[in-house]
Amino acid sequence: MKIKDIGEIGLIKRIAQTARTDSSVIKGIGDDTAVIKWTRDKYLLFACDMLVEDVHFRRKSAAPFQIGWKALARNLSDVAAMGGVGRYAVVSVGIDPDSAVSLADEIWKGLGSIAKKFDINIVGGDTVRSKKLIIDVSLIGEVEKSSLVLRSGAREGDAILVTGSLGGSMKGRHLSFMPRIKEARRLVKNFKINSMIDISDGLILDLWRILEAGGTGARIYESLIPVSGDAGSFRKAVTDGEDFELLFTMSAKEAKRLLKTKFLKAKTPITVIGEITAKKESYLLMREDGKKERLHPNGYLHF
Amino acid sequence: MKIKDIGEIGLIKRIAQTARTDSSVIKGIGDDTAVIKWTRDKYLLFACDMLVEDVHFRRKSAAPFQIGWKALARNLSDVAAMGGVGRYAVVSVGIDPDSAVSLADEIWKGLGSIAKKFDINIVGGDTVRSKKLIIDVSLIGEVEKSSLVLRSGAREGDAILVTGSLGGSMKGRHLSFMPRIKEARRLVKNFKINSMIDISDGLILDLWRILEAGGTGARIYESLIPVSGDAGSFRKAVTDGEDFELLFTMSAKEAKRLLKTKFLKAKTPITVIGEITAKKESYLLMREDGKKERLHPNGYLHF
Repeated sequence: MKIKDIGEIGLIKRIAQTARTDSSVIKGIGDDTAVIKWTRDKYLLFACDMLVEDVHFRRKSAAPFQIGWKALARNLSDVAAMGGVGRYAVVSVGIDPDSAVSLADEIWKGLGSIAKKFDINIVGGDTVRSKKLIIDVSLIGEVEKSSLVLRSGAREGDAILVTGSLGGSMKGRHLSFMPRIKEARRLVKNFKINSMIDISDGLILDLWRILEAGGTGARIYESLIPVSGDAGSFRKAVTDGEDFELLFTMSAKEAKRLLKTKFLKAKTPITVIGEITAKKESYLLMREDGKKERLHPNGYLHF
Repeated sequence: MKIKDIGEIGLIKRIAQTARTDSSVIKGIGDDTAVIKWTRDKYLLFACDMLVEDVHFRRKSAAPFQIGWKALARNLSDVAAMGGVGRYAVVSVGIDPDSAVSLADEIWKGLGSIAKKFDINIVGGDTVRSKKLIIDVSLIGEVEKSSLVLRSGAREGDAILVTGSLGGSMKGRHLSFMPRIKEARRLVKNFKINSMIDISDGLILDLWRILEAGGTGARIYESLIPVSGDAGSFRKAVTDGEDFELLFTMSAKEAKRLLKTKFLKAKTPITVIGEITAKKESYLLMREDGKKERLHPNGYLHF
């Protein structure tokens, strides 16, 4: 049996079953970051994210500055989805010794630029020779216990919301996106968010992860989903990866309160796209023509 | 200018200059791990280490179990060199989707085996498709403030010591070595260790790192250096990488006390190989024939 036969979801399940953790680990494999006991008021968050040339970017179309930026931005997006902020990063770089020094310089400028913007300390790393460019960033973050949001908290009747608009990220936004730390922090500090994830593999797949974690169903509406002008089609908008928008659920009452606040007038729109249902009602897309379509975990998977 | 022209040491210096850190960072880039303020009594340690196929191992000669073992063992060796223990790891894996599932299973068995042995919680990861196998492990560790040892504390007159014997690791030990956590913990809890590093790139290069960090010189003796039976030659024993032994310095008086204890009767020998001198006396190897040889940072470098 090959890895592509069990797929990325199957492989991660397999791995998660073998990883034993002690009682200091609140959440191990299976959320956007790990959650670990830390101080009386805060949890420590811990995540890693690897970028590989010709998989996550192409040297022809991605400026080295953007590659560095994206490497840390992806981790920050994960930390945002937990309701937290980033603190410390280590960076492993695989690079061809025949490359120009300016390649390394530009990658580090990109890393340094986003690190400065979000107060991240880059505290260590590893450099390795490699034909293909590889960057793996690991990030320690923190979150107040009262602000932590897991994937698993969605409840029947919750409204489902997204920030921004979806799709078309491959036209360039995937290299220069701003992780939704500020938006996530405002949300968790002012509202009761029941579950949250960042959309890295497409809306349909990442919402499925929330349903899977919480044991619920969902109904989303084609007419409500904010599609980016670059998306190409509705189908692409909901299955293409790398949007890095926040997808979250909250009670209908809290959602109503949110929609009344000035959040919607800020730069980042927030849109209700559907509701959480009982598991037995399954996972449905309500098409504009009135038809119901049953959804499956389709989106960007590595294998 | 190419990366190979400035070399690995030059590149890391360049990177370290650009990385800004706040006052919570006790030690950033430039030691075996980063050191970060944590609790009243302890520091948090943070490091990463990337393994790439055909650079750090070959699929023909390395069992997948050993690749997994080595990926975490390298980080544990870094934590040992700070005087600490490991706690939490995240693992990024780049793997070919056409590989057998058993490849992933065996890698994770190796990781899980060493994690169990050293009480490490594997709390997260990332899986990416990649033609070449890549494993990057990031590790959070901890150390009592009183047990922390940096590279930079060597003082004139210190004895220089190593654990085990050097060289010949490529004959197989580099894939199955036991990180010197237990030995390091015994050392820092019972003796005043002034500086320490793990030998990953050969004795001569890693001792140079201690001299560079502390601003000292050193004199080591060919006749004292413990050469492994597998080493091939003295020259290889002191320049080949991946020994993962501890190299440390302590006052002559403390060293005398150490040599009298039962440490030397334990499984892991500890040997005095020379002494720390003033910087102006430079970095010297005293050959068995009585000649002095001036040493330079030669050893395993990626570029």
